[in-house]
Order: sequence, then structure tokens, then C-alpha cells
Amino acid sequence: MTTLLVTWKEPGQVGIEAAWNARKNGADLVTMIEKGLAACEMDPSLMAIGLGSLPNSDGDLELDAAIMDGRDLNCGAVCSVRGIAPVISVARMVMEKTPHVMLAGDQARRFAIENGVVPINLMTPECIAKYDEWKRGEDEKFFVHTMNESHDTVTMVGLETGPDGKPHLVAASATSGLAWKMPGRVGDSPIVGAGIYADDEIGAAGATGLGEELWKACASYRSVRNMEAGMTAQEACEETVRHMMRRQTNSTDLPCVVMALRKDGDIGAATTKGEFPFWICRDGDIEFREHLALT
Amino acid sequence: MTTLLVTWKEPGQVGIEAAWNARKNGADLVTMIEKGLAACEMDPSLMAIGLGSLPNSDGDLELDAAIMDGRDLNCGAVCSVRGIAPVISVARMVMEKTPHVMLAGDQARRFAIENGVVPINLMTPECIAKYDEWKRGEDEKFFVHTMNESHDTVTMVGLETGPDGKPHLVAASATSGLAWKMPGRVGDSPIVGAGIYADDEIGAAGATGLGEELWKACASYRSVRNMEAGMTAQEACEETVRHMMRRQTNSTDLPCVVMALRKDGDIGAATTKGEFPFWICRDGDIEFREHLALT
Repeated sequence: MTTLLVTWKEPGQVGIEAAWNARKNGADLVTMIEKGLAACEMDPSLMAIGLGSLPNSDGDLELDAAIMDGRDLNCGAVCSVRGIAPVISVARMVMEKTPHVMLAGDQARRFAIENGVVPINLMTPECIAKYDEWKRGEDEKFFVHTMNESHDTVTMVGLETGPDGKPHLVAASATSGLAWKMPGRVGDSPIVGAGIYADDEIGAAGATGLGEELWKACASYRSVRNMEAGMTAQEACEETVRHMMRRQTNSTDLPCVVMALRKDGDIGAATTKGEFPFWICRDGDIEFREHLALT
Repeated sequence: MTTLLVTWKEPGQVGIEAAWNARKNGADLVTMIEKGLAACEMDPSLMAIGLGSLPNSDGDLELDAAIMDGRDLNCGAVCSVRGIAPVISVARMVMEKTPHVMLAGDQARRFAIENGVVPINLMTPECIAKYDEWKRGEDEKFFVHTMNESHDTVTMVGLETGPDGKPHLVAASATSGLAWKMPGRVGDSPIVGAGIYADDEIGAAGATGLGEELWKACASYRSVRNMEAGMTAQEACEETVRHMMRRQTNSTDLPCVVMALRKDGDIGAATTKGEFPFWICRDGDIEFREHLALT
């Protein structure tokens, strides 16, 4: 049995379908999730992540991604990478080809190119037009994202249970970060513990939304540890979100979302604000679900 | 009462004395810790962090730093910054002057310069000579640090208890990363949750050593949560280190160290390998302590 969760409606649908198509071609769990996120990154019609998403305040796209394998807690990540996509594949290369967890900025780009990734222009006429429109109305020094614009992160978690009953979990995330962000800003998405976490002994979790607040709470790791302590996936996410709402005054300025998948297949999600739509795929059966903010 | 912990012998001594001197000039806890780490970064005779430390495999110094304020969980970090020091002060600027947690690479450098930090050459004749010597013997594609060379991270955690008995905690870290590291490599030090964590409701923790393994375990956050669950600071660190030794096969290749400071002043530290020397300063009384690896 293979279970996948993917954040947000439009990019999530592209991601989950691409992941399941990869499985039909024999992909393992890591590859399914990589292909799912890569499809979102490379689809210029999605103004969500990767190619054709919303740039930073300079009009440059800087991408982040991370992937974690719950088997041995191995992980790979890149942050602030310009002119390279899909960055989820570069994060996977960091995990598999280096002894490191993260490469940053121009050096991550260099690593990608040295490993055969061809640099590309990430901007499209559509996102240039959006940028120009924003720039005309610019009135703040630092640009806090308006979540109405788009969902700028796609996070996937997956569980595969083998014939021996042993669970295997993977979590991954790819993002272009907050629209109009300060150049160089890194949010929770590429941060193992904040944006993603996976441990075969417990479960996996992923976060999306206001990255700064999710990072301060180590939201994904906290949710995984909550499941270890005996909570259901839903209780685990709600505890994390309620803790953030109590402890972090900015956590309800924008949605802060956590979703979790326990090693037995139990699923949960919670958000500090708004609605959180996500997709579930169980061996190809695809279901859409929406969670309302906790009150 | 003010209590400070600082990692490692030589740089730790420089750090703790500078921090206490700052206090004598009226500095608050955040400033004490910033000044302590900045003194280590700016001392070219310490081949530890900042100016005159050991560069990456290109012969470039790339610095990382983070700071977290336990009052509101606010934090700031920079990674892979070239030609700027002290980066702990840039991390503090990210915390205080932006709504963000982390800035990466050349954009973090640009932010620093825009905020008045003057670019400098970080290399010294001594570290150039060390680099040239290493380069002649180079035989690996990826360079795993030899901890004999130096301790390349300084981590500080501090507790201040006001007249009202309310504890206030701060954690911070600054590093040049593994000697001869892959360019762009980011370890645990600038990662909130991995290299540092502070929460006034519980305590603070800091990590140092093999950053990749410490990050996979979210070592600092795990240790703080352990104290929340009722452990002493020592038990909290030991649980984290034992968990790493069981779950992460590479965690004993090099020392993985965690130290913790509970909100009531209780102190602990543990390492997967070797000895971990650190300094304790209680209202100016300075004590040196060494912990042996857990067996």
C-alpha cells in the first residue's frame, strides 16, 4: 500500500498525478515524490513553484527544496538557487551524492550544473507581468506574502508499506518562497525539522504557509514527535498548530499549516488560519480534502 | 543571576570573557552573546570561526550564524556568507530588522553591507598556509572534517533570571563550517532547531560537531523538548545523543555534541565521541568542564 499527501489544490493535483504516474512506471517512493514535485516546478502554468512562479523583490526567482528519507534520516536540501529547476532533484542529489544536508545559493547552483543540470531562465511573460504590476504598487521595505496570490510551496509526504508490513516514509518540499520576498530569504521549506521530517519508526510531516513561524516551532519535527508520543496524525497536527497559536503572536497573520502521515497510514492536517486543501492518494485512488482553521 | 555556556576550550574562553566584559558595560543577554561570538569571529589567532579560520575546498571562507531569543521565539540566521564578519551580528540584524529568519549567500552579504557592515578579507597568512598544505595532500572529492584540526563552531546559550524570578534564554552559534567543506555546504549551526534553540518556558540548547547528523536529529530542539518533558539538562542531552547513536550510524564518526541549560539554571552536555570541553560563567565566576563520550 502506498499513501501520498500533497498540499494545495492546483499544484497539489499536478503533483499527485505525476507522482502516481511515476509509480506506474516503476518508481520507488523517493522517485515518486521527486517526480511529483518536479512536475509542479516545471509546469509554467502553475504560478506556484519553480518555472514561472512569483519572484523576489528584485524580480529574481530563488528556489528552495528538501527531501528526507525516513529509513536512515538521510536528507538533502538546497536554498536560494537561481536559474536551476527542478531544485527538488538537486536536493535529492545532495542527499545521495554528498555527505551533506544542505548546499546554499550560487554554490548549490554550481553543484547542480556540475552534476548535469542545465541552467534555465525561470521567468515567464506571465510572472514578469505580475512582478511589474506588484512593483508599481510597492510601498513596503519588506514584503510579506499575500497568500491570496498563490500557494508558493508544494509539500509531499509518502508512506509505503512493504509485503513484510514494514513502513517506509519520505517527506519533501519545493518552493519559490514568499512572493516578492527579500532576496536571499529562506523559509521553512528547505529546512529539515521545520518544513519536512520523516522517520520510518514514527511517521512523516510537512508544513506550508508562513515559513518563519513554522520554522520557529520546528513544526514538522514537533508533529512527528507528537505521533511518537501516541497522538493520532490529526491530534499531532492540532497540537503543533495550537502551540503556535498560543506561543507565537504572528502565527495567525497568515496560514501556518502542518500535515502528517503516521506509519500506520493515519492522516491529519491543521492550519492556524483559512482553509487548507490537500490531496490524498492511496494506491492511485485520489481524494481531495479540506481542513478549516482551528478556532 | 546570569549563566552562560560556551563550547570548546580556546575559542570558548575568548567568547565567555568577551561576553562577560560586555555585561560589565551594561549589555543585555542578547548583546552579551552577540559580543562573545563576535570576539571569537574577529580574533585571527583563533583558527576556529570567522577571520582566519579554515576555508572551504576552494580556499574561500563561508560563514554561518544564528541567534534565537527565547522570549518570543524570534530568531535570525545567515548562511554561506563570504567576506563579512562578524556574521553573528548580521544574524542578529536579520532577527531584529526583518520579518524573516534566514538570509542566504550573496544576498545575506548584500543585506549586511546595506546595513553598514564593511566587507573584509577573512583569510590570514596562517589559514592560507594551512589551506595550501591541505590542498597538496587532497585525495577525496568530498572533504570530511578532521576534528583534530580545530573546533570550527562556537555555540553559546545564556540564561538570565530577573528580580521577578522570570527566566530569559538566548542561544546562538557562529561557524566557518567544516574545514575544507564543499563550497556552499551548510551544517547545523545556523539552523534553528538543529544547532540552537531557546524557549523561555523551558530552556535552551546548542549543538556542535558533525553538523549533518545533529541536524537530522534536530538535536537542539529535541534536547529542549526533553527538558520540557521533565528531564534534567544532563538527561536531556544524553537522551538526544543516545538516540543519535542508536538511529544514525554516522553519528559516532565524529563528535556530535549537545549542551543544554534549563530555565532553572540546571546544566548538561553530552557527546557521541571524544571529549567535549566547555565553559560555564555564573555572574562572572568562570568554570571549565569536560564531558567524556557516552558509552
